[in-house]
Amino acid sequence: MAQLRKDPVVNRWVVVSTRSQTPREFDFGSAEGNHSTPETCPFCQGNEDKTPTEILAFRKEGSQANNPGWWLRVIPNKFAALQPQGDLNRVGRGMFDLMSGRGAHEVIIETPHHDKDMADYSNDQIEKVLWAYRDRILDLKKDERIKYILIFKNHGRQAGASMAHAHSQVIALPIIPKRVIEEMAGVKLHRELKDRCIYCDIVRQEVATGERIVEENRFFIAITPFASRFPFEMWLVPKIHDNDFTNLRKEQILELASLMRLVLLRLKVVLNDCSYNFVLHTSPSQSGGQDSYHWHIEIIPTLTRMAGFEWGTGFYINPTAPEDAALFLRQAKLPSV
Amino acid sequence: MAQLRKDPVVNRWVVVSTRSQTPREFDFGSAEGNHSTPETCPFCQGNEDKTPTEILAFRKEGSQANNPGWWLRVIPNKFAALQPQGDLNRVGRGMFDLMSGRGAHEVIIETPHHDKDMADYSNDQIEKVLWAYRDRILDLKKDERIKYILIFKNHGRQAGASMAHAHSQVIALPIIPKRVIEEMAGVKLHRELKDRCIYCDIVRQEVATGERIVEENRFFIAITPFASRFPFEMWLVPKIHDNDFTNLRKEQILELASLMRLVLLRLKVVLNDCSYNFVLHTSPSQSGGQDSYHWHIEIIPTLTRMAGFEWGTGFYINPTAPEDAALFLRQAKLPSV
Repeated sequence: MAQLRKDPVVNRWVVVSTRSQTPREFDFGSAEGNHSTPETCPFCQGNEDKTPTEILAFRKEGSQANNPGWWLRVIPNKFAALQPQGDLNRVGRGMFDLMSGRGAHEVIIETPHHDKDMADYSNDQIEKVLWAYRDRILDLKKDERIKYILIFKNHGRQAGASMAHAHSQVIALPIIPKRVIEEMAGVKLHRELKDRCIYCDIVRQEVATGERIVEENRFFIAITPFASRFPFEMWLVPKIHDNDFTNLRKEQILELASLMRLVLLRLKVVLNDCSYNFVLHTSPSQSGGQDSYHWHIEIIPTLTRMAGFEWGTGFYINPTAPEDAALFLRQAKLPSV
Repeated sequence: MAQLRKDPVVNRWVVVSTRSQTPREFDFGSAEGNHSTPETCPFCQGNEDKTPTEILAFRKEGSQANNPGWWLRVIPNKFAALQPQGDLNRVGRGMFDLMSGRGAHEVIIETPHHDKDMADYSNDQIEKVLWAYRDRILDLKKDERIKYILIFKNHGRQAGASMAHAHSQVIALPIIPKRVIEEMAGVKLHRELKDRCIYCDIVRQEVATGERIVEENRFFIAITPFASRFPFEMWLVPKIHDNDFTNLRKEQILELASLMRLVLLRLKVVLNDCSYNFVLHTSPSQSGGQDSYHWHIEIIPTLTRMAGFEWGTGFYINPTAPEDAALFLRQAKLPSV
């Protein structure tokens, strides 16, 4: 089983794999693509026997589990970073802290189509993906040893996707990730100082100035954040305060799906179908309450390489002002769909 | 002038460039190399007129500034992220904080040779580079508006190097980077709990177990840290406590140069001359004192791509256990030099 190890100075947790990847197993940054075809792709319809048994699927009436007839499937990750079996052991080794890599790592196959990505889906298909996110979080949080459930998507090889067929990933962790702890601390401090939610304040200021808005509808706003780390970084933030993604109601999911499709389409048109990552930041599983957080989604296109400066400092140089990025994205000529 | 902008939630500073890079100016992750030759390379001997005027150079007796005859040159970065001219203005814009991008951004041309990298230098040449680091920090810290001086190196295009000719960079910042603040907080907490330096404790435990040691000499140790974020990540740490790199004496610089050469040579042999970044973490310029920090160098080979998981969480999955990485590095067959 993998190990979780804590850096003793900055308290950052790292998953260290059981079986170490050796020097010759690294591809040394080759830009080679993934050449799988619908015939060989385990995520394609008809190849259900090439994947582990499905955990969840949205399927046509009458179709059978682990067989064709689905719109979306969730399966355990074959190369899981964390495993659901076994106890959660916490150990000290001298001054170092570690625990067993207990958790879960799942793959959400978003579509039966090999060559489509989220920007090409119908609103209806994106809704299905969002419902699957919600279902998996609600199911995994039943295990009280799970502290955080992380949903993310890597699109394109530059963004770390090892499979070309569109998918999201779910990782259930026995710890709360450092970034989320930092954001919750920021929320708490602002709450103490102002008795308001800092993300709600950001939404209000962004709506007032408008200069960093990419898309907006009744329930959501897509902005290029004021202190964007990366060119064309975007945040999708609910306009009505909520700490927890799983509180979403049907009418909100409809609006979120519509916003996501437009935002990803703009990104695709403006940035030449570049790779990107997105991550859902929601409340920790076993704690919180409405005051503790404001859920949101962060989208990061893969345009710049991280250099020593960024690694060494947690300090970023962004070559594109977010106001300009928002303008480029707003002005994108979308295909009529 | 560039702007420094602060994320209001997590207090992370970002430099946003003056002139925004537009979508068509990104190379969308092409793996194309830098094809400059010694004839066209502005960092090569004889091309001194293609660079800004030198700030510092180590030269042969009788050679003239901005002419051939040097072993090492320091010049202002032509594409500087921060500029030394102008006032340091701090402004609020609603709830957002920004300041003018005042600071400095310099390039240390480490060698006159176009095709050599640090692993190929003599110990003597690495010493020159280390003296240049020290000289530039001491000079830049005279400006009391400078809060932190960051020295780093990007080797190879995958690590973000835009020039093939070996060089390091110096950035002088009007703020202390987030990572350094976090490390100083970790040092402070440990000092309060144990009245010892946490990095000294790490050095003692690593020396005792030996399993993560790559190189060791009288004054320094090179380890793969217990909670390595990346495969083959290494830290070079002084064995005798010191908060500030500029306190190094000549006999220590000799030993550090020798350790660095061996460590980079091992990395080059084991990882097929892969790209890497290193960063010097030393005390902030205008504060500190011996108890506040323990300077060190972090080396990060560019083997894995950062994916959504890491960006979104500050939580890392490392496929190679640091104990295994240390073993591979120790067992490397070095060319006899």
